[in-house]
Amino acid sequence: MSLAQCRVVLVRTLYPGNIGATARVMRNLGFEDLVLVTPEANLLDRKARQMSTHGEDILHRARIMASLQSAVADCVTVIGTSARTGGLFRRQTLGTPEAIAPHLVETLAHDLPAALVFGPEPSGLTNDEVRCCHYLINIPTDAAYPSLNLAQAAAICLYAVRRAWTDHQAKPMAAPQSNTFAVAPFAAQEHMFDQLQHALEGIHFLYGPKADALMHALRHLLGRARMSQMEVDILEGLARQLRWYVKHGRRAEGKAEE
Amino acid sequence: MSLAQCRVVLVRTLYPGNIGATARVMRNLGFEDLVLVTPEANLLDRKARQMSTHGEDILHRARIMASLQSAVADCVTVIGTSARTGGLFRRQTLGTPEAIAPHLVETLAHDLPAALVFGPEPSGLTNDEVRCCHYLINIPTDAAYPSLNLAQAAAICLYAVRRAWTDHQAKPMAAPQSNTFAVAPFAAQEHMFDQLQHALEGIHFLYGPKADALMHALRHLLGRARMSQMEVDILEGLARQLRWYVKHGRRAEGKAEE
Repeated sequence: MSLAQCRVVLVRTLYPGNIGATARVMRNLGFEDLVLVTPEANLLDRKARQMSTHGEDILHRARIMASLQSAVADCVTVIGTSARTGGLFRRQTLGTPEAIAPHLVETLAHDLPAALVFGPEPSGLTNDEVRCCHYLINIPTDAAYPSLNLAQAAAICLYAVRRAWTDHQAKPMAAPQSNTFAVAPFAAQEHMFDQLQHALEGIHFLYGPKADALMHALRHLLGRARMSQMEVDILEGLARQLRWYVKHGRRAEGKAEE
Repeated sequence: MSLAQCRVVLVRTLYPGNIGATARVMRNLGFEDLVLVTPEANLLDRKARQMSTHGEDILHRARIMASLQSAVADCVTVIGTSARTGGLFRRQTLGTPEAIAPHLVETLAHDLPAALVFGPEPSGLTNDEVRCCHYLINIPTDAAYPSLNLAQAAAICLYAVRRAWTDHQAKPMAAPQSNTFAVAPFAAQEHMFDQLQHALEGIHFLYGPKADALMHALRHLLGRARMSQMEVDILEGLARQLRWYVKHGRRAEGKAEE
């Protein structure tokens, strides 16, 4: 396993200096894979290159993607960062960098891709983007001035991942946990969640103003379990059966009863 | 005790942006006392103020001193930072930020002043300055590109001090981890699984020879996530809605359609 397999995703970053400084600290701490989602800043701006120092080749190899979903499509673990902790965020597994980093490292230890996602200055990730994340990191800060500079937040988070990684490597062959199986990729999970959501709307379980919060809670619960492809297939099957039932079920039973 | 009593000392800093960004992250993490030893950069340079954001009043209150010795004269614990680990540095108590930070916090806990010292970009503290330090922090980095940006190194170190400080404050209460919520008791989970099983039989998702294996897979998946009581309640709600739908749903819709 290698930290090079940990993708760093910067979403709609405004300032080229922040992209450059993030590339630099990635290089310092052993990360390589930088992806920018619809950046506002030009990643080859003079300021970005100036701040990147030895990280300049990370800038040159950075990929630009149209959405967070596509940026993390193959990732098994997606970890967002947020300065907010209330509302939607309360339902998500939210913790300090050092509490959450081991989850990411566990994925890397299975040679699977994982992503660490940073929102734009100063607004952060949208609720829809937060929903894509299996875990959220919140860096505990002074309540009066919580808003960290993006590249400094990246430094703190990447350092926590590196520490969890070296800790993991120091464990002699860390006896594999019982749940070492291939976790289904993000895109497969998303497809299933879409199907499930439609099916649950069909039976009016998701209904009215609480629908979003309920679906979010289900996504969070299932996401935490790190589903295998087989389990994703089972839930797709459930969604299919629900839709079938809504369409034909009672009618078929009605006939049988008649 | 307060983090405000932890002095941050920047020695011969070259770039005003680094002074500003350090002031910002100090403000973010609850530090206040900035001292500059013979800075090359002007601490009220436009760039310093621009990078400081809410930390601007820290810049305005910063003191300028002629030597490291005078900057830390009243301090009980002085902690330096260094990218080097050989030579002189081998003789010093040298460790990661999280290994060294508790020493600093112990001093703060006795209401005594302590200092965290950062050398100039890119050369770092001189041997004489290193000798002034009781402990040295080395941030473990990639061997090929060890040189961190000053303000990012400050972010990582100050975050470690803040963590040690909050850990220290939490100790008498034997603090639970931040993200450990109460897992629902076994009996509540069992009750929910019973309800869910009946409901899934109702819609013929659990059906035929594979029903047992399917239900087992679902139990395993959900069990692994270590459900909270709220999540168990959500799934009970889903089971209830399924049973309601089987009984009334299509009929109600049928009526509406008629």
